[in-house]
Amino acid sequence: MAVTMGDASGVGPEIVLRCHANGELANDVVVYGDASILIAGAALLKLEVPIQAIDEPSQAIPESLNVIDLGLLEATDLKPGELRAESGAAARAYVERATHDALQGEVAGIVTLPMNKQATRMSDPNFIGHTELIAQLCDVQNYSMMLVTEDVAVTHISAHVPLTEAIQSVTKERVRTVIELTHDALSTGTENPRIAVCGLNPHAGENGLFGDEEKQYITPAIKETVDAGIDASGPYPADTIFHQAIHRGRYDAVSCMYHDQGHAPMKLFDFESAVNVTIGLPIVRTSVDHGTAFDIAWTGTAFTSSLGHALKYAWKLASRRRSV
Amino acid sequence: MAVTMGDASGVGPEIVLRCHANGELANDVVVYGDASILIAGAALLKLEVPIQAIDEPSQAIPESLNVIDLGLLEATDLKPGELRAESGAAARAYVERATHDALQGEVAGIVTLPMNKQATRMSDPNFIGHTELIAQLCDVQNYSMMLVTEDVAVTHISAHVPLTEAIQSVTKERVRTVIELTHDALSTGTENPRIAVCGLNPHAGENGLFGDEEKQYITPAIKETVDAGIDASGPYPADTIFHQAIHRGRYDAVSCMYHDQGHAPMKLFDFESAVNVTIGLPIVRTSVDHGTAFDIAWTGTAFTSSLGHALKYAWKLASRRRSV
Repeated sequence: MAVTMGDASGVGPEIVLRCHANGELANDVVVYGDASILIAGAALLKLEVPIQAIDEPSQAIPESLNVIDLGLLEATDLKPGELRAESGAAARAYVERATHDALQGEVAGIVTLPMNKQATRMSDPNFIGHTELIAQLCDVQNYSMMLVTEDVAVTHISAHVPLTEAIQSVTKERVRTVIELTHDALSTGTENPRIAVCGLNPHAGENGLFGDEEKQYITPAIKETVDAGIDASGPYPADTIFHQAIHRGRYDAVSCMYHDQGHAPMKLFDFESAVNVTIGLPIVRTSVDHGTAFDIAWTGTAFTSSLGHALKYAWKLASRRRSV
Repeated sequence: MAVTMGDASGVGPEIVLRCHANGELANDVVVYGDASILIAGAALLKLEVPIQAIDEPSQAIPESLNVIDLGLLEATDLKPGELRAESGAAARAYVERATHDALQGEVAGIVTLPMNKQATRMSDPNFIGHTELIAQLCDVQNYSMMLVTEDVAVTHISAHVPLTEAIQSVTKERVRTVIELTHDALSTGTENPRIAVCGLNPHAGENGLFGDEEKQYITPAIKETVDAGIDASGPYPADTIFHQAIHRGRYDAVSCMYHDQGHAPMKLFDFESAVNVTIGLPIVRTSVDHGTAFDIAWTGTAFTSSLGHALKYAWKLASRRRSV
């Protein structure tokens, strides 16, 4: 499994080092990044980590922290919390290489540690986000960001766009696509997953009193997926459906109309173990569900459990793909 | 304290009866509604409740369920779960009378049980919602809906409007007003309350990458309130701030940009005890935080604890007002 170390100024490389030092990284992990940063970082954090620079996954040596070394940064580029074009561009390159290797089948999938959007945009002004980049590298248009916890999976019609644009993304076609992607993503593990679809407006529009996107786009999209045999229902108010899904166990997934509609309740409910999954790709891709946290980077305080959850879920998806 | 019984087809009157039968309603409560419905309902639910129709709060008799009887509905109007113009109009009238009495100082405040928007709109097409009606009756323009739990208070820039309109409500003036209302509402109980302000866009716009409402309106509004001595900060991403406020105890209140941004996380976190408070009014007004639940009305299954929480918070606000 590939793990991209993320922006060198953020918490990503530190999490890799601390997880390895704690014995939380299995031998089946290969890091995509810069060995120089990891070596300098291990010294900074006073960690004993046997770092092994390699050129391809097959060269990995057991017990070592194996790094596909892109050689883009020097030890002197380790600047905790600094917004730098160099580390932003390097973080992008790790993802590019890991995605390439996953598409070639050289790794089972990729788990990504955080990039910094602003830093990456210094060299790539068109960069929107991690997920969008990987989808583009895979040449895929129809994908969705899924947040997964033990209790429920949450998918999104749109993710990293202004709320005004998110509203415009709510079309019948897009809603139907995301319900289908959600169904397909969960179907390998759950027979006929029960998908609750949120409305866009307060109280899901309350029968058209507060907006008509429900009637115009969401209800017809749900109907089409139901006609195709998918167990989808809604639209439901966003302020009651998570309770139904999580505390009552009535649904396996909730499809949300925009980023915060899904993220705000889920991250309140389960801040540390939520895993971010990109569905609709030809490869397995999961991610920790936090950012670069520049304010605490390289202080040894970032919580590390998220990487373990992301790896576990990535292996789960990879093994399902093999068994299909 | 006035309790309006809400729409006769919904769970409101049933909750009043069951709370009284369980000894959960103190003698300091006067119900605004229709005695005929409560009498018929008590028979339906086989509850022994001494219902006393009165004309004004001063006539209340201890141990009875005292009802300011508006005489608008008959026993035959008790139609569980039916959307009816009659019960919708009656529910509006209870609120009108109770608000009038609160403004006159005849009751300490009002606690409202759910109205049904559609039913009330059959006779009043301009009806938007409970909160908006009461604000109008009090002749107040600047108010906000606040959700309160033991852990945190959440206020909203807008409530029952389409999301498109909610975005347009995010102006510097409105954001400043809601921060000020939040500060004033909490200041009677908490010295210098710490107010976290949410962004509108994902990641609070991530420095302008996903929308500019934060830079244009929200940040300047926060600055003005800080200059006025209020402990406000932000804008923060909606998907991390509730964790900070609730699990880390870093804030006393979160001001949200639209209905679901506050309601979705709060109602997942604390579905049964959240109390809805209207701030900025000359009177005390709290409400249970659920709807008419037509699907389970008059079956004896609706949870009743919410009324107790709403009454308790109303008394807390009323006693603070007296002591000021």
